[in-house]
Amino acid sequence: MLGIDPGLRATGWGVLETAGDLPGSAARCGVIKPPTAAPIEQRLLVIQRELAALIDEWRPAVVVLERPFVRENVRSALALGQAQAAAMLAAAAAGLPLFEYAPREVKQAVSGDGNADKSALAQALTVQLGLDTVPTPADASDALAIAACHVLLEGVGGETERLVRA
Amino acid sequence: MLGIDPGLRATGWGVLETAGDLPGSAARCGVIKPPTAAPIEQRLLVIQRELAALIDEWRPAVVVLERPFVRENVRSALALGQAQAAAMLAAAAAGLPLFEYAPREVKQAVSGDGNADKSALAQALTVQLGLDTVPTPADASDALAIAACHVLLEGVGGETERLVRA
Repeated sequence: MLGIDPGLRATGWGVLETAGDLPGSAARCGVIKPPTAAPIEQRLLVIQRELAALIDEWRPAVVVLERPFVRENVRSALALGQAQAAAMLAAAAAGLPLFEYAPREVKQAVSGDGNADKSALAQALTVQLGLDTVPTPADASDALAIAACHVLLEGVGGETERLVRA
Repeated sequence: MLGIDPGLRATGWGVLETAGDLPGSAARCGVIKPPTAAPIEQRLLVIQRELAALIDEWRPAVVVLERPFVRENVRSALALGQAQAAAMLAAAAAGLPLFEYAPREVKQAVSGDGNADKSALAQALTVQLGLDTVPTPADASDALAIAACHVLLEGVGGETERLVRA
């Protein structure tokens, strides 16, 4: 399972091994940072290609995205839509099913509190996954929380998804 | 030169042969209509792949996009950003330079009136391109106008771009 927190400046990703239950799951995570001086289309291409490479490397069965919370202004909604599209296209081109959760759903599922702050969410995630330390950086931790949310709400359909490089 | 008017429901495209001057230019145009019942990621994939196929077929030297006019609400800005990203990615993946113009710039350059309505813009475009009839449908005509705007404002850099299938 691959969780993605899409953004033009930083796109967090987290892969999660799931066997129907979360504690003891193995996890890897990181952040894609396209060159900030590059034009938008080049940044989108970096996001799409790096996500495609991660899908190729980790062979997730499912991709899970954060649904943009569109409280913000129209210009940031445009940028969020662009980054989200790059992530969607990486999933769709690989033929993978896509799920989306709102930030509030992720916080509720992982920490039991839909209004949890970033630190409380990261702590709860660490416990849920049975990890020794809090995953960092924050964008990567958020992406793992998105993947964990999907497992907690939907399970893994009886299938075991092992975290092994292809 | 390939002009694109990106949209999740309909993405207009227009290819224009340019030799430094517009009258007498050859033009082809059309509309990509992703299945409306499909999820967004599938619609984005149709847009990106069909644009990639058009680039492969017509070998434009430049791609020109309409810059979204973000007067609208946040939700439509998100959708516009998504469709725009699919078009940007098709251009960037092909290594083509990308230019963007606001709707007002396109109207001003093609018709001499930044407030021209759709019908007046299409008429002016028909004259500028030396065509016998107004290009249809409207989304395709808009895409041709975007390409024509770039030629009128920037020329073609001394190079002749011939409209021949690869």
